[in-house]
Amino acid sequence: MTNAQPDPRDPRLAAWRSFLRAHARVIRTLEAELDASQDLALTDYDVLVQLAIAPDRRLRMSELADALLLSRSGATRLVDRLVRQGLVERVVCDTDRRGQWASLTDDGHARLRDATPTHLGGVAEHFLDRLSNDDLAALQRMLEPIAEA
Amino acid sequence: MTNAQPDPRDPRLAAWRSFLRAHARVIRTLEAELDASQDLALTDYDVLVQLAIAPDRRLRMSELADALLLSRSGATRLVDRLVRQGLVERVVCDTDRRGQWASLTDDGHARLRDATPTHLGGVAEHFLDRLSNDDLAALQRMLEPIAEA
Repeated sequence: MTNAQPDPRDPRLAAWRSFLRAHARVIRTLEAELDASQDLALTDYDVLVQLAIAPDRRLRMSELADALLLSRSGATRLVDRLVRQGLVERVVCDTDRRGQWASLTDDGHARLRDATPTHLGGVAEHFLDRLSNDDLAALQRMLEPIAEA
Repeated sequence: MTNAQPDPRDPRLAAWRSFLRAHARVIRTLEAELDASQDLALTDYDVLVQLAIAPDRRLRMSELADALLLSRSGATRLVDRLVRQGLVERVVCDTDRRGQWASLTDDGHARLRDATPTHLGGVAEHFLDRLSNDDLAALQRMLEPIAEA
């Protein structure tokens, strides 16, 4: 390690801890609301969204894993669960031998449509509505380069 | 649901997505570095930190779960794993019947001390050093109320 190591009392760490705790708090709340009103896991919702916005509503497993910032094995476990529920199906493409695709079913699309008001309502209530538009713009300016790193 | 639901094209959602992706990117990197150089999971490191900063280096399981923003069962699974590694031990307190405590062992403290430079070096490199002190102050002001919600 050649990194300069901050002192554990470095005052900058307070911002890092707020970032971690704000994320954990909002995600926990969104998970609980989606589970209670839609009986759907937030991770499953994320998979349905990624497939719904993809061309032809399908993605290679490797593309899906990248979009979810998950390992390939983690994405496979999620998709297996959604296939068992009939929300996603696996497709092998004749003209593309580069692995399997995951495809959103009509049931999956309906499930996503039903769950979206709950999810986006929660994102607004617990995050967006608590920040001004200037703050949201500043947040995006600060965090987007870190997200793209 | 009485929440106002944002349109899926609401431009404010870009800030939310940057927040999610920045978190996922930094956490994934920190996890990989801690695993590669210390063979330690980031979730385990978090448990060791919480115990190390607690009075007498121990916490009730319910306090530990709250500190980690985990369910009680999630905290129990983590502690079980650390007990098997000898880094944490379970203690029953004579004067307090309100459940079990988790206590940091000397090995656990040594393990934490070894891993801390890797972890804090990563937090600095991948997050703190990429933001100005003004940005970090703004981030804390924005996110602390959300973390406390």
